[in-house]
Amino acid sequence: MTNKPINLVEKFATFSEHWSPKIVAQLNDYDVLIAKVEGEFNWHNHPDTDEMFMVIEGEITIEMKDGDVTLGPGEIYVVPKGKDHRPVAKKEAKIMLIEPQGVPNTGDPATAKTKEWR
Amino acid sequence: MTNKPINLVEKFATFSEHWSPKIVAQLNDYDVLIAKVEGEFNWHNHPDTDEMFMVIEGEITIEMKDGDVTLGPGEIYVVPKGKDHRPVAKKEAKIMLIEPQGVPNTGDPATAKTKEWR
Repeated sequence: MTNKPINLVEKFATFSEHWSPKIVAQLNDYDVLIAKVEGEFNWHNHPDTDEMFMVIEGEITIEMKDGDVTLGPGEIYVVPKGKDHRPVAKKEAKIMLIEPQGVPNTGDPATAKTKEWR
Repeated sequence: MTNKPINLVEKFATFSEHWSPKIVAQLNDYDVLIAKVEGEFNWHNHPDTDEMFMVIEGEITIEMKDGDVTLGPGEIYVVPKGKDHRPVAKKEAKIMLIEPQGVPNTGDPATAKTKEWR
């Protein structure tokens, strides 16, 4: 391991697909992921874990049954364990996610994207 | 809990002291903290956990025995468990930290700042 910082701008430049989180760092048994998102994701929840969203560029809305939350750059929201949510982005947005390793992004291993390192 | 995002700019505006991390969110049993830093911290390590640094504004250098790493805005570094490090900032910088709850910022409970919510 070299002592190099992880530069998110550089990492985002290496891919273009949406809703396909890439691992950029690990913190104990947690993954730090980045994703480009646009349009609507599916409704889902993570029964065993909270999930942290941070917007790096653009804007996303996390729809929830009891009220939506809209995040811009430098804003964070932690979706509680088990809570149904649907991320949506009217235009492309760049986000960072932190969650335990192995959590399926769709809430369901059968439909989740395999996470790869960037 | 209301569905409001956590806005880091607003949170940073609520305090001015240096090297005194404030909790802004929790993710399972991890704290999401922000801090203003300037000058030199002490050499220390966290024997039981990695520690994630992200610079929000300004620049910090994390000195380590095998090579320093300098981070600007949007850059991340995870200091591995047990690794001696000393954060320094020539000018005031704003950073985000993620680590398990209860980790002393100095590596030693006797000298650590008590973490408070913002």
